[in-house]
Amino acid sequence: MSAAGRVLRLLVARGETLAVAESLTGGLVAAELTSVPGASQAFRGSVTAYATPLKSEVLGVDAALLAERGAVDAEVARQMAAGARRVLGADWGVATTGVAGPEPQDGQPVGTVFVAVSGPRGSGKVAALRLNGDRADIRKESVRSALDLLSGELHENASAQDTEENGGN
Amino acid sequence: MSAAGRVLRLLVARGETLAVAESLTGGLVAAELTSVPGASQAFRGSVTAYATPLKSEVLGVDAALLAERGAVDAEVARQMAAGARRVLGADWGVATTGVAGPEPQDGQPVGTVFVAVSGPRGSGKVAALRLNGDRADIRKESVRSALDLLSGELHENASAQDTEENGGN
Repeated sequence: MSAAGRVLRLLVARGETLAVAESLTGGLVAAELTSVPGASQAFRGSVTAYATPLKSEVLGVDAALLAERGAVDAEVARQMAAGARRVLGADWGVATTGVAGPEPQDGQPVGTVFVAVSGPRGSGKVAALRLNGDRADIRKESVRSALDLLSGELHENASAQDTEENGGN
Repeated sequence: MSAAGRVLRLLVARGETLAVAESLTGGLVAAELTSVPGASQAFRGSVTAYATPLKSEVLGVDAALLAERGAVDAEVARQMAAGARRVLGADWGVATTGVAGPEPQDGQPVGTVFVAVSGPRGSGKVAALRLNGDRADIRKESVRSALDLLSGELHENASAQDTEENGGN
């Protein structure tokens, strides 16, 4: 089973939903998830905010933050994931932002990527990556990293839930 | 050059921009466009409104229309394309909705697909497709059809522009 398939199966088992916000991956994370039959049981939708202003206008990322640090930034990734959850009405949000190349962007070299997850009960995480390869490689590896980060958070959050529930006994 | 590359080159030459609204293709149209280096010169972004309510909540499709006809409908496709233009602030919008399978949806058989284009000066078009193959085939063919429809409209609209300009001389 693909990473996307495993993530969706986990979400369906928990009765939780997922939304995606993408920049450099430009639709690939959503496409990977929706390649799985029955994805609609957990996948709500996605926003590709490719033009930088859309990150604030549609996903609610702080415009001052974008102006100060540019679009390729850990906190921007975190706010994109939170925005996906909020705007698309999901339990979990996952986001990607970075430089796929061939040109550097916002003062960041090609291969600089941030992926983020935002979950229920304030859970969340951001990973900073330095990826090698061409544009297609960097985009593909960013998708894999985003789904891995989400998978890890889902498992960690499940353990926390178990602990809370056991703690009550 | 890919169909996505040709469409983007046309748009850049005209100084116009593009936004995408996807349902069954789930991010693939956007991913195809953003696979082209320099896509950001014309591509603004996309919304994958996979859960039906997001088609009205995010893209502004008439909720009564969705309730009456379901998500797999020519007029829904037209309103999704218009919504992409408006919400993502682009000159052109392209949209897909349909049944990728494996199960029928909203009373429509697998392979029923509508693709739509919305452009400046009220231009636009919807195509109804009956596609064969598996889920991956249907999604891939829907992407190709959406980009072809857009390409056709761009050429037609360019001719109209030329005619208008020549008519003024």
